[in-house]
Amino acid sequence: MATPTTPTWVLFAVSKDASLLGAITEKHAGHRTHYNVTGFNPVIGQPVHGIEAGHHVVRIESSAPVMLEPHKPDAHVVVFRGVTQHLHYTNKEDKEKLAVESRTEMEASPSTTAVIIPIRKSAGWWALTQDQRQAFFHKTKSSEGHTNIGHPFAAGVYRKLYHSRYTGSALPYDFVTYFEFPADHADDFGHLLSNLRDVSRNPEWESVELEFEIRMVKVKND
Amino acid sequence: MATPTTPTWVLFAVSKDASLLGAITEKHAGHRTHYNVTGFNPVIGQPVHGIEAGHHVVRIESSAPVMLEPHKPDAHVVVFRGVTQHLHYTNKEDKEKLAVESRTEMEASPSTTAVIIPIRKSAGWWALTQDQRQAFFHKTKSSEGHTNIGHPFAAGVYRKLYHSRYTGSALPYDFVTYFEFPADHADDFGHLLSNLRDVSRNPEWESVELEFEIRMVKVKND
Repeated sequence: MATPTTPTWVLFAVSKDASLLGAITEKHAGHRTHYNVTGFNPVIGQPVHGIEAGHHVVRIESSAPVMLEPHKPDAHVVVFRGVTQHLHYTNKEDKEKLAVESRTEMEASPSTTAVIIPIRKSAGWWALTQDQRQAFFHKTKSSEGHTNIGHPFAAGVYRKLYHSRYTGSALPYDFVTYFEFPADHADDFGHLLSNLRDVSRNPEWESVELEFEIRMVKVKND
Repeated sequence: MATPTTPTWVLFAVSKDASLLGAITEKHAGHRTHYNVTGFNPVIGQPVHGIEAGHHVVRIESSAPVMLEPHKPDAHVVVFRGVTQHLHYTNKEDKEKLAVESRTEMEASPSTTAVIIPIRKSAGWWALTQDQRQAFFHKTKSSEGHTNIGHPFAAGVYRKLYHSRYTGSALPYDFVTYFEFPADHADDFGHLLSNLRDVSRNPEWESVELEFEIRMVKVKND
């Protein structure tokens, strides 16, 4: 996952009503990108309710935290928050390879697919030591591991990882993962996901308690 | 550093005026501990101003984020915030050794010394990959490293690490480190600090840009 060293905060807001998103973007500075939802796919755990095809999405990225006012939840807007962090599992060799090979962020267009996948891992995962968690990213005798599964897809799929755990409120997810790829690469992206969710190839996924997909088309940058 | 798996949020508030701290504790739920400042020691970088011997300190720990209302900074109260996280560098073997050997939190008493040390590391540190940062914690041919320097002191000094980077606001420090020890062990604690700050023994410290000490006596738990 691409992870700049200066933290970038993100707010994704989803609503059936585009004018509600307009009110949010007026109040929050940052780089804005607009999307339309094309599909919603629950994977594991209890997904968020009320997101469906035709809904509007705005992503606001900023070097300062982007937060809606507390104590004013809005039943008509669903939000996801996070922040980019330093690299937690990548080593120097993989960082250098990925820097050269990875797809960069794409232009908005009707053929640019974007996907938000919030993920929560188990309490057992977070109780592991660094070496225990790190081991799940590497190849073993019996499994490929996260890094080797993901590597062949890095050139085709733009990836960005936002961390949500410890960002200030108790959220039902630990990460917001974000992807972009050309619409005609949807099958490749499907293979990436199914490989990462195959616990015989990627035992890390046994620690995933919640995961759902918001499929979108990237409409425009402000 | 002791790091429970359920996040504990902390707010330390420091003031010359005990009644200002009373107003804060009335508004914020959590486990409260009271201290008196006995000394302030700048170490490196631009320390916070206005903390001196005789000032009062309250620590509020909570499973929910403890934050003062935003946009209402108070020139008469200095605050430090953070949250405990999962283990970022400790391996399973060291975790198990430290769980048995480490001093636990002490009772409040006139002979219980507590110390708050906020620390900021450089942008260069945060740009390193996990394996590069991890290496600083281990012994090499030329240096002992953080883990080996700290280990002999674990039985004498209670340690707790709160993370502040990425917690929601741009703070001038990345960590709030917290220590307790019997007042007559002050020399031991001094050796621990001077060893960790000796870059020939602990090259990690070359990445420390800001560090200062707030020395206290632990007065009471609410």
